[in-house]
Amino acid sequence: MDPTSAVTTALRERSPLVQCLTNYVSMDLAANVLSAAGASPAMVHDPHESADMAALADAVCVNIGTPSPSWADGMRLAAERAQVDATPWVLDPVAVGATAYRRELVVDLLQLRPTVVRGNAGEVLALAGAVGGSRGVDSLAASHDAHDAAALVAREHGCVVVVSGEVDVVTDGDRTLHVVGGHRWMPMITALGCSSSALVAAACAVVDDPLDAAAGAMGLLAAAGTSAAAVAQGPASLRVALVDRLADPDGLELVGRVRPVPA
Amino acid sequence: MDPTSAVTTALRERSPLVQCLTNYVSMDLAANVLSAAGASPAMVHDPHESADMAALADAVCVNIGTPSPSWADGMRLAAERAQVDATPWVLDPVAVGATAYRRELVVDLLQLRPTVVRGNAGEVLALAGAVGGSRGVDSLAASHDAHDAAALVAREHGCVVVVSGEVDVVTDGDRTLHVVGGHRWMPMITALGCSSSALVAAACAVVDDPLDAAAGAMGLLAAAGTSAAAVAQGPASLRVALVDRLADPDGLELVGRVRPVPA
Amino acid sequence: MDPTSAVTTALRERSPLVQCLTNYVSMDLAANVLSAAGASPAMVHDPHESADMAALADAVCVNIGTPSPSWADGMRLAAERAQVDATPWVLDPVAVGATAYRRELVVDLLQLRPTVVRGNAGEVLALAGAVGGSRGVDSLAASHDAHDAAALVAREHGCVVVVSGEVDVVTDGDRTLHVVGGHRWMPMITALGCSSSALVAAACAVVDDPLDAAAGAMGLLAAAGTSAAAVAQGPASLRVALVDRLADPDGLELVGRVRPVPA
Repeated sequence: MDPTSAVTTALRERSPLVQCLTNYVSMDLAANVLSAAGASPAMVHDPHESADMAALADAVCVNIGTPSPSWADGMRLAAERAQVDATPWVLDPVAVGATAYRRELVVDLLQLRPTVVRGNAGEVLALAGAVGGSRGVDSLAASHDAHDAAALVAREHGCVVVVSGEVDVVTDGDRTLHVVGGHRWMPMITALGCSSSALVAAACAVVDDPLDAAAGAMGLLAAAGTSAAAVAQGPASLRVALVDRLADPDGLELVGRVRPVPA
Repeated sequence: MDPTSAVTTALRERSPLVQCLTNYVSMDLAANVLSAAGASPAMVHDPHESADMAALADAVCVNIGTPSPSWADGMRLAAERAQVDATPWVLDPVAVGATAYRRELVVDLLQLRPTVVRGNAGEVLALAGAVGGSRGVDSLAASHDAHDAAALVAREHGCVVVVSGEVDVVTDGDRTLHVVGGHRWMPMITALGCSSSALVAAACAVVDDPLDAAAGAMGLLAAAGTSAAAVAQGPASLRVALVDRLADPDGLELVGRVRPVPA
Repeated sequence: MDPTSAVTTALRERSPLVQCLTNYVSMDLAANVLSAAGASPAMVHDPHESADMAALADAVCVNIGTPSPSWADGMRLAAERAQVDATPWVLDPVAVGATAYRRELVVDLLQLRPTVVRGNAGEVLALAGAVGGSRGVDSLAASHDAHDAAALVAREHGCVVVVSGEVDVVTDGDRTLHVVGGHRWMPMITALGCSSSALVAAACAVVDDPLDAAAGAMGLLAAAGTSAAAVAQGPASLRVALVDRLADPDGLELVGRVRPVPA
């Protein structure tokens, strides 16, 4: 079955509970994206309860966009619990190249073996040590420049890596998939990348193979974005229409978004 | 006068100042819902100032959706001040059944005698000790299963309890009201429940009887949702249209949303 | 060149990196406003990294809307770094008159010499010590009552002061500009004022004269609001359309929004 179709159907049938420890900017959109796609969001971050919630969750998304010490503790505890329970968890290393504080936090979190790492090209390059810095949350490097970095990170940490871009790249270091679609306004919607990480986590809860799950989730977002662009006048109305489309996926062109890349 | 009409008119005439100590996910929507309905939102949470703001506020809304120790301190101080000043305050026990940390916080806050408690069926059941857990912020139990739990909580804590659902139930343990309207997409709008708690707080500042105030606020949201659904394509455009409608209530069908339930 | 046109063009050509330490309510809208206008937002607040980010940023926006001790530390460190590096920074003293905690924080931050202070009339009056209190984040005083207060603050602190209102007032204590446009729904959009502060910061990074930069940024928002109102049905759809318009400024009436005020 096409991975995008599989993810789309399974999310609606199984409604996974997805714990998000995500940045302040993305909470609203990430929760609405999850709800519209059929998942059940739980934004729970504090170290007093993050592991308890991870024990209940079907998947966990950890996003370091607005880190602080207590949030970092909450992230570690949730990720530890996810690792122990074999619950899939996704790491979104927002702007990891920008400050030493983020780099140290991500190094810590990578020890807890995320199922998937999703970032833009700049973030994945920074993760791989290929570049020394990143310009805030923006991606300066095109995603195809980050293919080698993604494969390196995937092999070193035994995870799937998603590099968001005009064409998304999804790799486990061995197999690689491309995801096509979307719209040029999508990168202008703040927190849409963060929301895609949350959707990847949801997909990992309902589709066994993390490579297919991650690609299918990115395919669903791309399909919704392409369809939404037909009625949008700019990034803000695209955001509204995209969430609407996720809630009513019957009209989306899901099949064929995910394409294998010859080795 | 019909409670929904009374609340709608009084909010616009008196523009109550409503302090919200609410979760990160709901701040944006809750503030915009309050503003559109004519109230004045003040999102002030820190223990260094939460009681000072409560002393100025006409009503306070405490929502435990993303709790942490310092926020919990801020909530206790604001609720204490509200209790001392006889300022109405509303408690929204988000996902109270999910973790021990939330249960303990809610037990504490209930001692400070909220005017109204608003939750979904699962949360009200958890409050009543009728169930041991809750699945994140979602409601697994239909709201009619929670009627007895609501009456129990209302009587035990001397407050009004609102159970959100397809038909909202509002009770003080003696009188019970139903609120009808809304749309099937409304539960998919993250933080709309939290925003209804904020609107209930605002209503309690301008209508004397908390039972009528709470029912009227829920009636206003239901009327706006029903009207907005006529132009919406999904949950995200419904959210936009709903806030638009709150800001221009003349065309809403307000009367008859709130209905007495024979004892 | 007209200041609004100059700011609009320069933001798209130079895409300044704007660090925001802003309140929880405004993060989503502020980041999207910056992105749509061509700037690159970085919401980075914690004291462990706020100065590091300020060292990379082209401008910094400090907004005290939801203050707490660790955020206040992060704000001081970022502002200090901006001052040392001669990076422009903007202070938004949200509801400064409401609590002693806010007043003390703002007194501290003013020592770090902001490039621009932007507030509503009530906030600027509170800053000037002209009034003892403020009613939450709302403005009770019309902006023209705050002209003298703005000039006083500008001269005392060597900064530009923006007073938002039906007509915005921008002054350095010597020269004064008016900015016209916008729509009556704009004050009902929560966090639009905060977002204008972020846009002023962005403008200060790309236009040398802070008076022109601040006025041009306010002019751009006013032009987008006026244009967006033509397709909006209320404050929520205005918000969506306004961000859409910022992303496609070709059709906006930019020229003539900023007008000199005879001394």
